[in-house]
Amino acid sequence: MKVLVQRLKNGELSREPDEVIVEEPLEIRLDGHLVATTMRTPGHDYELAVGFCSGDGLLGGQLVQSVRYCGEGPASEFEYNVVTVETGGHAPVPLPRIGNVSSSCGLCGTSALADMVTRLAPLGPVATFPASSILGLADKVVPLQDLFSRTGGLHAAAVFGPEGNVELVREDIGRHNAVDKVVGHRLLNGIGDAAERGLFVSGRASFEMVQKAWAAGFGTLVAVSAPSALAVDVARAAGMTLVGFARGSSANIYCGAIDDSRSGLAASDSVVDLDL
Amino acid sequence: MKVLVQRLKNGELSREPDEVIVEEPLEIRLDGHLVATTMRTPGHDYELAVGFCSGDGLLGGQLVQSVRYCGEGPASEFEYNVVTVETGGHAPVPLPRIGNVSSSCGLCGTSALADMVTRLAPLGPVATFPASSILGLADKVVPLQDLFSRTGGLHAAAVFGPEGNVELVREDIGRHNAVDKVVGHRLLNGIGDAAERGLFVSGRASFEMVQKAWAAGFGTLVAVSAPSALAVDVARAAGMTLVGFARGSSANIYCGAIDDSRSGLAASDSVVDLDL
Repeated sequence: MKVLVQRLKNGELSREPDEVIVEEPLEIRLDGHLVATTMRTPGHDYELAVGFCSGDGLLGGQLVQSVRYCGEGPASEFEYNVVTVETGGHAPVPLPRIGNVSSSCGLCGTSALADMVTRLAPLGPVATFPASSILGLADKVVPLQDLFSRTGGLHAAAVFGPEGNVELVREDIGRHNAVDKVVGHRLLNGIGDAAERGLFVSGRASFEMVQKAWAAGFGTLVAVSAPSALAVDVARAAGMTLVGFARGSSANIYCGAIDDSRSGLAASDSVVDLDL
Repeated sequence: MKVLVQRLKNGELSREPDEVIVEEPLEIRLDGHLVATTMRTPGHDYELAVGFCSGDGLLGGQLVQSVRYCGEGPASEFEYNVVTVETGGHAPVPLPRIGNVSSSCGLCGTSALADMVTRLAPLGPVATFPASSILGLADKVVPLQDLFSRTGGLHAAAVFGPEGNVELVREDIGRHNAVDKVVGHRLLNGIGDAAERGLFVSGRASFEMVQKAWAAGFGTLVAVSAPSALAVDVARAAGMTLVGFARGSSANIYCGAIDDSRSGLAASDSVVDLDL
């Protein structure tokens, strides 16, 4: 959406048009049950709904039979802010979720992790990416962010392949939504095993981002910004490679392995707690 | 928490210690009712709990009588991840909240805004800040971010006064939590009218950030990054001054007024929709 703003620059005020990000609530339902309402940037809503349900473990391994916008009553103006995912009632009835942590999740980092280990099996063998394919990812993704280039305010999630080739980019005002859209796209298009693929996120690697990457089977998560301590613990439990601060020619490898043939070293299981 | 990481820089791998942000769930209860579970950076938890309850309108104008950590059963290891806010049962029983939007909130931007206008009165007269006190806020706040300087990964919220003096800074891995901590601090310390104060946030100005600023009575919200279209609408309805992209010597004024005596202009009610 375009608005006219006052731009203050070097002590001068001028009137200029500015494009601002659209943000609206999306209500996600699974087989008739309300499972979440999230503020999102409209677009790829089906992917978002399916990716959310999958990442939260709500599908229970069941196939998605249909996804549709669902207004209540005739000619509802809210029609495009409600998406229903249908498994024909085969998915388990979802537990209520309060805030940004599932209500089945424990109340400290340790039990949140334990809960996740119970739900998700460790990843099998995952691809070891060359350093060259991880460095520079941000520079490849930004030009593919159509909305970001116009508004300067959107998070991105992207799938990259073994040579650092960017296969898919999704944007959203919410970091988690961008990842859900990527995951939902792969599910809706029957794109399988993600162990040979990496997930790139334009922000931080928090607990939830690693959880979503793990649930989707990504063997490598690369973040532009910092991971949290809990995110590192979860990535280790998953057997995932976690890279943070991936900017320009530098990056931190928090766990897992990358192939750095130039230095002759392989960074592998390199994280040790120094204190707790 | 310190971990040992592999640092990749200019093609060389080295092992170095790195401090990562701690992230743990906090369960917030109001008079015995679970109202939210949020992933947060521990610290200032009482402020976070009170600020959250206040910003969501859960206190219903009632005074907070006590705030405490609340384990379940003896010697619970979860003791510091549950905070109970008590109003002696005077606050209304909270409605369930699903995802990041109150369940009482409508399902499109318009009704979310209508809901808020019903709950919150427009702000009275608010201070008009000089441009000089808005520019450079980010440069003043970063040195006050103790955790950010060590981890490079935390959001900040800050209160600033008429001369651009920074009065309070709070940090958290979650943008919303940092604002809740600031608001909770003011409430717990009996600091009143915020109309003469500004709220600074280190990230975007989304719908929820403007909502929280409005509920706390701040007349001005300054964000380092972009606002959303809905955030601009909400700020206008509140009568708030909303500034985005406040970086170095430039900023965008999306609505409200700042005093730019150097250019002889006052940016006032300057936003016009160009298209929808």
